[in-house]
Amino acid sequence: MVDAHARRTELAEAVWRIVVRDGLEQASVRNVAREAGLSMGSLRHYFTTQSELLGFALRLVGERIEERIRAVDTTGDQRAVVRSMIDEMLPLDRPRRGECEVWLAFTARAVVEPTMAGLRKEIDERLTDAFAAMIRRLADAGALRPGLDQKVEAERLYALVDGVILHALLRPGRTSNATAKATVGAHLDQIAPAAADER
Amino acid sequence: MVDAHARRTELAEAVWRIVVRDGLEQASVRNVAREAGLSMGSLRHYFTTQSELLGFALRLVGERIEERIRAVDTTGDQRAVVRSMIDEMLPLDRPRRGECEVWLAFTARAVVEPTMAGLRKEIDERLTDAFAAMIRRLADAGALRPGLDQKVEAERLYALVDGVILHALLRPGRTSNATAKATVGAHLDQIAPAAADER
Repeated sequence: MVDAHARRTELAEAVWRIVVRDGLEQASVRNVAREAGLSMGSLRHYFTTQSELLGFALRLVGERIEERIRAVDTTGDQRAVVRSMIDEMLPLDRPRRGECEVWLAFTARAVVEPTMAGLRKEIDERLTDAFAAMIRRLADAGALRPGLDQKVEAERLYALVDGVILHALLRPGRTSNATAKATVGAHLDQIAPAAADER
Repeated sequence: MVDAHARRTELAEAVWRIVVRDGLEQASVRNVAREAGLSMGSLRHYFTTQSELLGFALRLVGERIEERIRAVDTTGDQRAVVRSMIDEMLPLDRPRRGECEVWLAFTARAVVEPTMAGLRKEIDERLTDAFAAMIRRLADAGALRPGLDQKVEAERLYALVDGVILHALLRPGRTSNATAKATVGAHLDQIAPAAADER
């Protein structure tokens, strides 16, 4: 008996390969079936439309990232904890770069494609919540700079991280990884200065 | 006699319409000729490859933005000047939204398409310079918060603005414009606090 979850994961991975190699437009049900070595009939057992297929592939990216974030050790300096959580989102190695490429291909298409509005909104809300939780974590630890608006800071950190991901994707290589980490680091130092830096 | 520059601009606009409506993959020389109501032969008088066509269309987006930035009144409070310059990049109305959509479609494709590496690098360098000039403007006016690294701050502002553009594209509407402006505003207030806020 084939494990349905394992099969769906294999299919999502076939979608990722096509998106990264050929662009999102090529991730049709037919092409994904071919990439995964399945008949159209077998694939339709798991997904009936392209939207379902893309939605599943993208949610799986989100779940992997969320799983890694949940695995971050949350003891100790909360600035370091938030930094580690954000590192799990950045394209610092090949697997994370693949996730970010799928996310960007989806995002660029979702901006102009009305049928993707629901999924786009769902992902935006999950990420908004994730960044709000990071800011709250800093605030609860007394590490957030006094006078900052938590809602604005959550949105600002979220926008900054998306911009850093975009730049890291555009400039592959080790220098780019260092820039990505330095940019996020400078931001966290500003919104949550270490005690010795406070004035 | 047809004005070559005007004709090239018309063609770039045909590219933009296709990219926004159908995705970057559809902006082939053939489809652009059809969209512009020209024969393939006439179009080849101006552009011989799809890369040339895309490059020209994207550079024209950049030139329009740079032109508007140059037109910003640079007298008075330099924080307000920088804010006005950044407003010219944000998708706050229909024309600017179209520019940003073209930029995003290109960016998403350029990340995985090696033939776009040259153009990608050129645009990244121009934008890096533009943001470095804004930070220098704040520093020269004595408005930049002491102790900040200008190079890091230029990259941080650039990443933040790209993230804000991405979010504004993903969440169309007036609320989203207000969020975009508030996020950039909060960032500028942090890196260049008004005199009364300095401590």
